[in-house]
Amino acid sequence: MGRIFKERTAVNEALRLFLENISPLRHAEEVPLEACEGRVLAETIVSGRNVPHYRRAAMDGYAVKALDTTGASPVNPVLLQLSDSVMEGTSLWVHTGAVLPEGADAVVVVEDTVTTGNMVEIRAQVHPGRNVGQVGEDIKKEDLVFEDGHLLRPCDAAVLASLGLERIKVFRKPVVAVIPTGDELISRGKAGEVPPPGMVLETNGLMTILYVEKWGGISRYTGIVPDRPESIKEAIEANLDADMILISGGTSVGKRDHAPEVVESLGKLLVHGVGVSPGKPVALGVIDETPVVCLPGYPVAGLVALYFFVRHGIRKLGSIPEMPELVLKKRLAAKISSKTGYVTFTRVVFEGDMIRPLTGKAGVLSSVAKADGYVLVPENLEGYEAGQEVDVFLIE
Amino acid sequence: MGRIFKERTAVNEALRLFLENISPLRHAEEVPLEACEGRVLAETIVSGRNVPHYRRAAMDGYAVKALDTTGASPVNPVLLQLSDSVMEGTSLWVHTGAVLPEGADAVVVVEDTVTTGNMVEIRAQVHPGRNVGQVGEDIKKEDLVFEDGHLLRPCDAAVLASLGLERIKVFRKPVVAVIPTGDELISRGKAGEVPPPGMVLETNGLMTILYVEKWGGISRYTGIVPDRPESIKEAIEANLDADMILISGGTSVGKRDHAPEVVESLGKLLVHGVGVSPGKPVALGVIDETPVVCLPGYPVAGLVALYFFVRHGIRKLGSIPEMPELVLKKRLAAKISSKTGYVTFTRVVFEGDMIRPLTGKAGVLSSVAKADGYVLVPENLEGYEAGQEVDVFLIE
Repeated sequence: MGRIFKERTAVNEALRLFLENISPLRHAEEVPLEACEGRVLAETIVSGRNVPHYRRAAMDGYAVKALDTTGASPVNPVLLQLSDSVMEGTSLWVHTGAVLPEGADAVVVVEDTVTTGNMVEIRAQVHPGRNVGQVGEDIKKEDLVFEDGHLLRPCDAAVLASLGLERIKVFRKPVVAVIPTGDELISRGKAGEVPPPGMVLETNGLMTILYVEKWGGISRYTGIVPDRPESIKEAIEANLDADMILISGGTSVGKRDHAPEVVESLGKLLVHGVGVSPGKPVALGVIDETPVVCLPGYPVAGLVALYFFVRHGIRKLGSIPEMPELVLKKRLAAKISSKTGYVTFTRVVFEGDMIRPLTGKAGVLSSVAKADGYVLVPENLEGYEAGQEVDVFLIE
Repeated sequence: MGRIFKERTAVNEALRLFLENISPLRHAEEVPLEACEGRVLAETIVSGRNVPHYRRAAMDGYAVKALDTTGASPVNPVLLQLSDSVMEGTSLWVHTGAVLPEGADAVVVVEDTVTTGNMVEIRAQVHPGRNVGQVGEDIKKEDLVFEDGHLLRPCDAAVLASLGLERIKVFRKPVVAVIPTGDELISRGKAGEVPPPGMVLETNGLMTILYVEKWGGISRYTGIVPDRPESIKEAIEANLDADMILISGGTSVGKRDHAPEVVESLGKLLVHGVGVSPGKPVALGVIDETPVVCLPGYPVAGLVALYFFVRHGIRKLGSIPEMPELVLKKRLAAKISSKTGYVTFTRVVFEGDMIRPLTGKAGVLSSVAKADGYVLVPENLEGYEAGQEVDVFLIE
């Protein structure tokens, strides 16, 4: 009691310290292409074949020797004999994707032809290679197709399939242990009726496991742990095989806030107290190379800690590339006030073409449920004025 | 042969016609909260309880009668007796989340107190309600919490859990049949070696099922169907129980392009030929209320049709809200040329702070694999100049 936060570390500095203590997992696993979406390649893909592997017609039409079409036009068509092979003066129907007959070096599209009996009128001149897909036009044998670390999209799966691959190596997903702490917590499964006064349903853990899974991790929910240093210590030690440990609750400076101290006793406490509001009590540490985040028990503060630290930590562990942040530019329908020294996470709702900030304490998760997105006020500002255009992030 | 597209419908008009023929599925299914992420609520959620359901301390500190703190300050503290209940002149330690003792109406945070023996010095004045979470402060009984149609995020799952809910009703996911057509196609499972000339591995279907799943549908892959009207007809008829049918290939105007005609013979062909490049041969129709998309066989054109039509169709079927489109603003490192009358889908790669357009035929899927995003040139422009700032969409 009366203990204070060790420090108030700036968000960026806290994140830097945290990520510095995280090493990407190097273990890979094989998955079939049907399950590769959203996974990260753990191998470099060099093509073992040409795609296409044969010279093909790129359009429906007539395969020709390009020289035969010299000067052809609608008013001055060239007549070629329909045949089953292409030589000087002969032509052969081909459909898109078909093998281009030997002897042919171009295709005249069907729209530029008229057939009469066993003759075809060519009404356009084509140059050699016209409407022909060359061998390896898409991918050449020995081409570097993807480097390891590439985040796989459905279109990439098709490219890998075109190389004849069925399974590929991807980095395994980080396992994230989620430990909810608090004597006041009741497990949801046992709920039924409204809990007695002073007791609340455990819901932060549910939110946390769903974000962990959404961001590319595998969650391991441990069940509720009491507010005792010994219990928290045991729960951490039982999960040191995980790739990250999240402890929810008990991270502030009260009598019952033991999580940061326990982390310090087992390993290294990197940060306790961050310049973000809500979310100040977040603590970051590392135990035996396992990164640990103490998430504030207030749900909005916990959400902020998930967004600011856990999301990036999972990405680094899983070698998931950081994508450019996508934001909307919107004008504020009302002012936002904030405290300097803190990045302020303000929930907002869309209101026509504008956004309106929502007020709500850190304990009021329904303010997030009502929100479409959030605005971050930098630590050096006291807020934003009504009418000002700001960056809006969607809440995912 | 010599057949031409029925029309060249503008993209927006084609999409409008397509969506007009799609009705959202009204069937719901129950899922546990652990599986609700990304699903769409099929019921309105009205709270059956107050959250919190008791008056609680919002901070660690001392519960007091606010009146007792009148005038308190660091130089002029008020002394209160520590007790096990709160009356005039007495105070009681409370931790965050604890029941506020009867008689108390405020909490003085621990930082503003000093304890000496069984007395506590109060060094700040508090008004009634200070640091107190009132009953229903987060959610009141009978509050409308979510309307049906709400897309559920992890934070929403926690809100639902706090209401004591375990399972909720969500709209069922649309089932999308994926029918790859083409005599030249070889099933990937049977691949092994490079196929004979003229034959290619079926890869568009794989790309399609992965996008369908990513966008919230359930895919049903039918296996390869030959380029014969009767076979395509049979495949469609066998899948009219699906919520959407996608036919890949055979949608152009060649001898072997039967898909749009078959759709027309069984139902209504809404559009054949769209002002988008690549992707012009796309056809849209409806058979017995089941929307049908004929996807061009060229993979980039197929991808464009997936993005422009299938994505929105799945959203409408599944009642998935359309989110604001998130774009990056980037300058072009080189010009983009395009044809008026067509929305042009140009693949781009990031290059420092700029983007560079990639060239590549519609048949060259590796151009998409190399791309980070795409730029759309509107149909009334002939392109963009180098240096111009444009909207970039990420390829998902």
